[in-house]
Amino acid sequence: MSKTILSINAGSSSVKISIYTTTLSQNPQEAAEIQLDNLTSPPVQLKYTRGNTSIAKDQKIEDQKITTQNEAFQYMLNVLIDDKDLPQISKKEDITIACHRVVHGGYYDTPKIINEETYRHIEELTDLAPLHNAAALEIVKFCIKEVKSTKNVAVFDSQFHQTIPEHIRTYPINQKIAKANKLRKYGFHGISYSFITRSVAEFLGKNEGETSLIVLHLGSGASACAIKGGKSWDTSMGLTPLAGLPGATRSGSVDPSLVFHYASDVGKLAPGSTKDLHISQAEQILNKESGWKALTGTTNFGEIASSSDPEKKLAFDIFVDRICSYIGSYYVTLHGKMDALVFAGGIGEKSYLLRRRVTEECECLGFVIDEKKNGKKIEELVQDVGKEGAKHRTLVCQTNEQFEMARYCAMDEKLFN
Amino acid sequence: MSKTILSINAGSSSVKISIYTTTLSQNPQEAAEIQLDNLTSPPVQLKYTRGNTSIAKDQKIEDQKITTQNEAFQYMLNVLIDDKDLPQISKKEDITIACHRVVHGGYYDTPKIINEETYRHIEELTDLAPLHNAAALEIVKFCIKEVKSTKNVAVFDSQFHQTIPEHIRTYPINQKIAKANKLRKYGFHGISYSFITRSVAEFLGKNEGETSLIVLHLGSGASACAIKGGKSWDTSMGLTPLAGLPGATRSGSVDPSLVFHYASDVGKLAPGSTKDLHISQAEQILNKESGWKALTGTTNFGEIASSSDPEKKLAFDIFVDRICSYIGSYYVTLHGKMDALVFAGGIGEKSYLLRRRVTEECECLGFVIDEKKNGKKIEELVQDVGKEGAKHRTLVCQTNEQFEMARYCAMDEKLFN
Repeated sequence: MSKTILSINAGSSSVKISIYTTTLSQNPQEAAEIQLDNLTSPPVQLKYTRGNTSIAKDQKIEDQKITTQNEAFQYMLNVLIDDKDLPQISKKEDITIACHRVVHGGYYDTPKIINEETYRHIEELTDLAPLHNAAALEIVKFCIKEVKSTKNVAVFDSQFHQTIPEHIRTYPINQKIAKANKLRKYGFHGISYSFITRSVAEFLGKNEGETSLIVLHLGSGASACAIKGGKSWDTSMGLTPLAGLPGATRSGSVDPSLVFHYASDVGKLAPGSTKDLHISQAEQILNKESGWKALTGTTNFGEIASSSDPEKKLAFDIFVDRICSYIGSYYVTLHGKMDALVFAGGIGEKSYLLRRRVTEECECLGFVIDEKKNGKKIEELVQDVGKEGAKHRTLVCQTNEQFEMARYCAMDEKLFN
Repeated sequence: MSKTILSINAGSSSVKISIYTTTLSQNPQEAAEIQLDNLTSPPVQLKYTRGNTSIAKDQKIEDQKITTQNEAFQYMLNVLIDDKDLPQISKKEDITIACHRVVHGGYYDTPKIINEETYRHIEELTDLAPLHNAAALEIVKFCIKEVKSTKNVAVFDSQFHQTIPEHIRTYPINQKIAKANKLRKYGFHGISYSFITRSVAEFLGKNEGETSLIVLHLGSGASACAIKGGKSWDTSMGLTPLAGLPGATRSGSVDPSLVFHYASDVGKLAPGSTKDLHISQAEQILNKESGWKALTGTTNFGEIASSSDPEKKLAFDIFVDRICSYIGSYYVTLHGKMDALVFAGGIGEKSYLLRRRVTEECECLGFVIDEKKNGKKIEELVQDVGKEGAKHRTLVCQTNEQFEMARYCAMDEKLFN
């Protein structure tokens, strides 16, 4: 029986919902996609596409106050219900499964149906990543209360990385405290890495289990992942998404002492904290007030990549340096046995300038880009940008987290029925 | 005219003094070496070698209370003066130059004669690295007051790294605050890297300016350095020695959020802090209560490397993983154009097991060890352990920080005269 699945992806200043119909064990078919942006810098903007029809694009919403992800979700839910041309959802009850992207899933290695126990557990994990889990949980709470007939499923951005071996995931700290406080490398962007690994394996005509890759998911949040035999072997993010590569407003890895020399009282709670949501000043500074926004004043990476302004050039060079350093590390950890270097995420897909510089810097490992192929618009799911005859392939993959979330539900009988 | 130079190296629980005689522009000749260990776990132990004669070895000192580096220095100074067979020092005034290893030298790129201005500046820098600069400064203060005829020179562990380019040394954080608070990558172990670069270049018969290396200084504090054309291009330590590789009691790089989930109030001062010396709980935990001591209970790396105990095996594997990840990064940042991989420091020189595992893991880059050469005792200044015919050479260098400090003084007329 065909069911309607909503994939809900709550980011730091946007919420995306994709609507799929599918039957068990089949790839989900997208019916529509709706998105609200600019939650933290109003007016918010609506984008809505049904099938191949663009219904709204950059439409400013000024008649309603929408500031939280939960308000954004509710607004979009009403748009979907009111759309007579979207027969899949004419009332809330038409939604069979609401599938929520939850950043931090602790030790979970598969998606979970949200019941009292899993909800409580996810809530506990929120202490580890308050900046990242809270928005999704608000939407989950709303769905449980207001859309009672719908099954809620959490898909975790960390679950794909549960295969990272002990000597890579363990921090060299007191292990009693590490275990009690759940301190280890978890890794994130795993929904995307799962999608990319399968898609690239298919493109290469290989089994996933025999596919090894270095994947770069580069967006306003950025990370790198070493995929060994189809599984995550190492990734750049850590206990939280802060570690690793810098991002739009995130510092990435810095000397762990740094923040104590940045400001006093960084252990105190940041102004945005609530009774349930403890965010230290330090985490606020390094997650929200750093990155290329702090270096250049803009979060628009396209502008940074093409500018000759010294601050923007510096930000670009820093990003390239840190990316290449992970490529070198992961090349070694895979013992050089790998099928391709894969660029993904908004920046990975769009910035041919970044792809060019990164591969130039890593040429000694055998990655060579084909200028002509790299200059083309990325339109395929997986597109080759590497030079023929190079030692290793270089690819771009258009990742799709919402699809992957819905696919998890469609492929697993326990989640689907 | 021949002069007597003392090279004073105050570590976290030991003080070493080497006594040299030299004339301007000549390599210093060592007359004696004296060392007090176990300052933090008494009884302290004395080691004293004059020329080729061992005077004391692991001699327990129990008749005097020696707990600080400054007390250790004064004790050893008296031993040297009282030794009738060491004619170079029969009274304090015989010391022409006291050369102090200072960990954090901020923007200094050369050694400095300590006058009021430089002393004040070094004191200010101590805020950035209170755990590391304070002991040396106590000894400097004593020398200024009690050995008035002696010239005091500070040699900085950070100065060698002033050549690190902007896009590598800059943290992606607010640059106004970074500049005001002097927040950037400085790097340490530079006295050692300077010695190693020159020694390896000589061994290879190349000019230093044409020598590119990946150097691993592995001791209870450990770091890696990419040397490009004889100069530091990147290194694993950062604003402070905490970043990068783990060490005996140091975590190395961890998610910068981690410490806030390790304990509450980590921004507060640690018990050891004084009015002048501000050490946060966080810095205490990550510098002093982590590393392989926290993982295994011992700081003896030889024991860790040869054990089959799961905790020790894990610590060894973690260390190998983190080292190899820097080798991969630095290989890329040097574009594969390099002369040798160099092991140095207590562990780098002694642990053939570590050298074997690291090169095995990095074989895809062209490093191959010769089992027989690697198993031999390291007796040469620079000793080849690589397989003939391998793409890149693998060497071991017996680094000598005290010699390098004295050499700085001997080679620079302004410091020497």
